[in-house]
Amino acid sequence: MNFADRMCAAVAAKGTPALVGLDPHLELLPEEFSAARDPSRPRAQRAARMGDFCCELLELVAPLVPAVKPQSAFFEALGADGVVQWERVVRRARALGLLVIGDVKRGDIQSTARAYATAFLEGAGESREFACDAITLSPFLGSDSIEPFLEVCERTDTGLFVLVRTSNPGSADFQRSGSPELSFQIAARVARWGERMVGASGLSSIGAVVGATHAAELASFRASMPRAPFLLPGYGAQGATARDLGGAFLPGGGGALVNSSRGICFAYKDARYAGLSWTAATLAATRAMIADLATATGGR
Amino acid sequence: MNFADRMCAAVAAKGTPALVGLDPHLELLPEEFSAARDPSRPRAQRAARMGDFCCELLELVAPLVPAVKPQSAFFEALGADGVVQWERVVRRARALGLLVIGDVKRGDIQSTARAYATAFLEGAGESREFACDAITLSPFLGSDSIEPFLEVCERTDTGLFVLVRTSNPGSADFQRSGSPELSFQIAARVARWGERMVGASGLSSIGAVVGATHAAELASFRASMPRAPFLLPGYGAQGATARDLGGAFLPGGGGALVNSSRGICFAYKDARYAGLSWTAATLAATRAMIADLATATGGR
Repeated sequence: MNFADRMCAAVAAKGTPALVGLDPHLELLPEEFSAARDPSRPRAQRAARMGDFCCELLELVAPLVPAVKPQSAFFEALGADGVVQWERVVRRARALGLLVIGDVKRGDIQSTARAYATAFLEGAGESREFACDAITLSPFLGSDSIEPFLEVCERTDTGLFVLVRTSNPGSADFQRSGSPELSFQIAARVARWGERMVGASGLSSIGAVVGATHAAELASFRASMPRAPFLLPGYGAQGATARDLGGAFLPGGGGALVNSSRGICFAYKDARYAGLSWTAATLAATRAMIADLATATGGR
Repeated sequence: MNFADRMCAAVAAKGTPALVGLDPHLELLPEEFSAARDPSRPRAQRAARMGDFCCELLELVAPLVPAVKPQSAFFEALGADGVVQWERVVRRARALGLLVIGDVKRGDIQSTARAYATAFLEGAGESREFACDAITLSPFLGSDSIEPFLEVCERTDTGLFVLVRTSNPGSADFQRSGSPELSFQIAARVARWGERMVGASGLSSIGAVVGATHAAELASFRASMPRAPFLLPGYGAQGATARDLGGAFLPGGGGALVNSSRGICFAYKDARYAGLSWTAATLAATRAMIADLATATGGR
């Protein structure tokens, strides 16, 4: 089944578009995982402890949400040992029935792009167990840098979320240049790239990352990319609320995943959950997010 | 010593701005490394054989060139086992006295950018032996996504090459949008980001990737970024020649590194070197590149 259809089915099954971002910042891990940040320990041991945290978190959220988004930087920060844990986390998430969106934001010339597609969508070393269901990509290098990923997506029923407008303040520096603004030029390409991969759901497997922090523009982005699944970062720790998201959804409330990373992973640091264990805080924050998002998607 | 000064010293010592790109495409490796592409073998064994190729190549070119540029995609395509080899290759290159420019083209929001800076410039898991001397970065997310790298570069005497105009045909899709063109907007930022890291050489540790395939514009990019070291991809397999490069250099012939990847790594497939072993072909191609570049840099 194509990625878009799998995403729609997963959202329907869990009844929420909530996406949990796995950003295992070492310095924010709960105390019982502090070995991960202890430089006196062997790197493999530290990485394994970080992986333990991610896997425990997966067990908590798997019954509640359709998808997770591990951020590769935090794994790579522990080098090859961290990447061992990336593979463990991807495999475990898939075994738990979660869709895995690898937040890798790669982007390179064609011959190199093919190698990245192998790494993240075909499964490194041709083992599908390490493959993500979809990844994020940077479009900065242009169409020929995206093409190898499109081929692999078609062949392996995986998907892409292309950066169109990121959630950070600096996104205005370059993404708004030109007329139409660069982000809208990219949006037009995303719509075109996705035409060949529209599923039974009416959505394409080629989606867009659009920051939830740009509430006023979400409806315009939706109009430019009517069939693209949206991945909306910026909810929670970065300041966006469910009220900001309305424009991103399709009529009926589908077509988008809303990401929260630190707000879920490190909910135990939030004053609202003071006194709770990290697991109880994470569960409470996940449930609060799901309830909040229901207001944006009409109770879906 | 700051990265720019180390780069100038290395170029002066070897008498050439030739940069060897390590792009270990599995399907292009010489026959004696074919185990690397044999899917029936364990992934760790395949990766180790790819690493053997890279390390033998390092031994060949280390006496001749100042720097190498491993491309992370080809290592990541073999997953965690590939990343083990990435670390082996970075460590070996540094031990051979080569500058290592990690071609990673990362780019992400601030908190994530910090993790990437740890991964590639501080040394994953805080071990400097795995750290690169400089890395390539994508500027698509804007200034706040670059800032964490600038801090780490200042602290660790490492450098950056920010993508300004890439060498591929698709670079025109987005990099030329706007007025001034996006690439020139980025160039102006690169010049500003680099102001705080100008070394005794007069060059900054914050450089730019500018495709050698855009010969007509190299002088304009040089005028916009008078203190930035340039990394020029596109020479050789991608079609640019030494004649195309003149505008990128500073008066006196310094300030730029010229990259060739496939033209050196896989010279044995080139009709000009028919009948030679892969090592002899690689050596001949490296020497030919050095001689060719001497014409662009006034014999420097």
